[in-house]
Amino acid sequence: MPRIADGKITSPSFFIGLDGNGIISFGSGQPDLPPPKEIFKHLENQRLFKYGLIQGDEKLRQALANEYPNARIENFVITNGASEALDLVFRAIYQIHGRVKVLLCRPYYYSYPSIVRLAGLEPVYVNLVEGRIDPRDFEKKVHDVKAVLINSPSNPTGRVEILSTLRLIEKITEKLGIYVISDEVYKDLIYERENYLIKGKHVLTVNSFSKTYSMCGLRVGYLYARNPKIISAATDIKMDTSMNTNILGQEMALRAMQVPKSFTTRQTAIWKKRRDFIYNELKTMGFDLWKPEGAFYVLPKIKHSQRVVNELFFKHKVIAYDGAWFGAPGRIRLSYALELAQMKEGLARIRQYLQGKDSWL
Amino acid sequence: MPRIADGKITSPSFFIGLDGNGIISFGSGQPDLPPPKEIFKHLENQRLFKYGLIQGDEKLRQALANEYPNARIENFVITNGASEALDLVFRAIYQIHGRVKVLLCRPYYYSYPSIVRLAGLEPVYVNLVEGRIDPRDFEKKVHDVKAVLINSPSNPTGRVEILSTLRLIEKITEKLGIYVISDEVYKDLIYERENYLIKGKHVLTVNSFSKTYSMCGLRVGYLYARNPKIISAATDIKMDTSMNTNILGQEMALRAMQVPKSFTTRQTAIWKKRRDFIYNELKTMGFDLWKPEGAFYVLPKIKHSQRVVNELFFKHKVIAYDGAWFGAPGRIRLSYALELAQMKEGLARIRQYLQGKDSWL
Repeated sequence: MPRIADGKITSPSFFIGLDGNGIISFGSGQPDLPPPKEIFKHLENQRLFKYGLIQGDEKLRQALANEYPNARIENFVITNGASEALDLVFRAIYQIHGRVKVLLCRPYYYSYPSIVRLAGLEPVYVNLVEGRIDPRDFEKKVHDVKAVLINSPSNPTGRVEILSTLRLIEKITEKLGIYVISDEVYKDLIYERENYLIKGKHVLTVNSFSKTYSMCGLRVGYLYARNPKIISAATDIKMDTSMNTNILGQEMALRAMQVPKSFTTRQTAIWKKRRDFIYNELKTMGFDLWKPEGAFYVLPKIKHSQRVVNELFFKHKVIAYDGAWFGAPGRIRLSYALELAQMKEGLARIRQYLQGKDSWL
Repeated sequence: MPRIADGKITSPSFFIGLDGNGIISFGSGQPDLPPPKEIFKHLENQRLFKYGLIQGDEKLRQALANEYPNARIENFVITNGASEALDLVFRAIYQIHGRVKVLLCRPYYYSYPSIVRLAGLEPVYVNLVEGRIDPRDFEKKVHDVKAVLINSPSNPTGRVEILSTLRLIEKITEKLGIYVISDEVYKDLIYERENYLIKGKHVLTVNSFSKTYSMCGLRVGYLYARNPKIISAATDIKMDTSMNTNILGQEMALRAMQVPKSFTTRQTAIWKKRRDFIYNELKTMGFDLWKPEGAFYVLPKIKHSQRVVNELFFKHKVIAYDGAWFGAPGRIRLSYALELAQMKEGLARIRQYLQGKDSWL
């Protein structure tokens, strides 16, 4: 996909890695907060430069197993971020079941449809209602597919699924013999209630250290599954296509897991404050949007979203993502993973841009 | 693939990451020599923990561009080792051309057939003669395929292709409009002559920092291509399936590139000494094998290679790989990436095991 065509930005990859030069970015979904300082010490150990187990370091997998009820180290594969975990899961499903259908919730994280298609599978969609799954619609669509991908808290909606919906999904998919791929990368960033971990042999949980510990660039994530066939297929594919996840990153992930829980609690408090700020500001500006319950995104409505994203960037040096990239045209996604002062300045520029455009909101 | 079935080891993944406990490993192809010490300093820079460009850090790509004639940073994609570079190349070819055939040389690196098949392509084979490509046989088979994968110096044969063969491949594939994927991860480990870089818009060069700088576990490699369509497709696939290669590893690769050339020269001298040692020892023991000209593998003939690999491991704690995993049954692959003292002990155990089995050689 070209990143820019006819002078129009057509893909979020246009923005990735862009910063400085007075740009204010509501774009990329990465924490600006620093990772725990404990992870930097004594990295010169030679063991950290050699091949490791394809499935992942045993100490790291043991630390993860301790966090999930009745889990064992063989239930995990450590991956190059959640992205590779998803890629491996879908390629594994293709190896086992051939070209089957996968149900995605729309709006979706922009890579979902491509990851599914690249693996040889076919995406089908259920539309979210007010940013959440509509249980009745879900029940109708789920009969036609072999796997379902859910993402709660959601990127880009910022919503957290209702408990009864998650229980329903857990139950109905188990009954039908359908996989649930649960992308939980924002599970430690919920403002409203605890995370509900959906369980079962049919559940394939995907997570990462990126958002919780501010380690996006290190690319360490994992797949957790009770289904040994999926774990084995994913590990075999990883052996051929990327080998072990970088050992240094795995070591740092292990250290991050050992820092006191207060690290995440403190971070979540900061995120919540920012959430309140941006939500209230956008409301005041007249935007129609959902209140985020987790993650760090808002997805306000705006007409001509492609034009808005282009003009905000080229005229005002503000990065926002076009909702169309997430299956939500007529909206823009703003990440609030940036400092309050930056947010204020960014919102001021957006306010200025929108002068005389009240009818677009 | 199960790693062990009916008590028989069936895949190299059984051995990966196994060490200690008195095991002598001629298995995994990773240098035991340390990486340059310069790469460890000041890693706590916060920038190193954030998402980077999907295509790879610009400084690292510039440093690479300086090493290839007339290359520019847009010709490179930094990847999770050479493995991901190959995976991306074949997936990109599938995106552009659909299900086409890829010519592999047999014996091959064990992941090649799977990487090709996982991408949706079909592997076909040309048999090596004395561990090298037979130009006439190659000319016959090449008409039927869309891409050719070559690997010189070769894992597992240790051979370096003859210059005239490489020039022929360069020319004939260009004429036929066929891609040449040139896996050159061992190009800095040639004992007999300089590397010949095959060139052209149809050449897709794959390389890594793993072998040259002893950084296998960090997983940093790259794709170098003058074909912008391939680069763009590979970058798009990487965006969806793994994002940027881990930033810390990229920074360390950049520093490794800045160390004096004497680092590699010194290492190559050590490899050559080991090559001479193991080649002469195996010859003395009565093995029939090719003399390695690069990389760090020997592939001696031995009957009942599966049984040999199993018994060497379970009875003598010696890791050797079954030639069958590389498309070369009746041979075993021994890596000589280990210290002389270890090699001596390992070869003594093999000698002991082979007592009374002269007819197997």
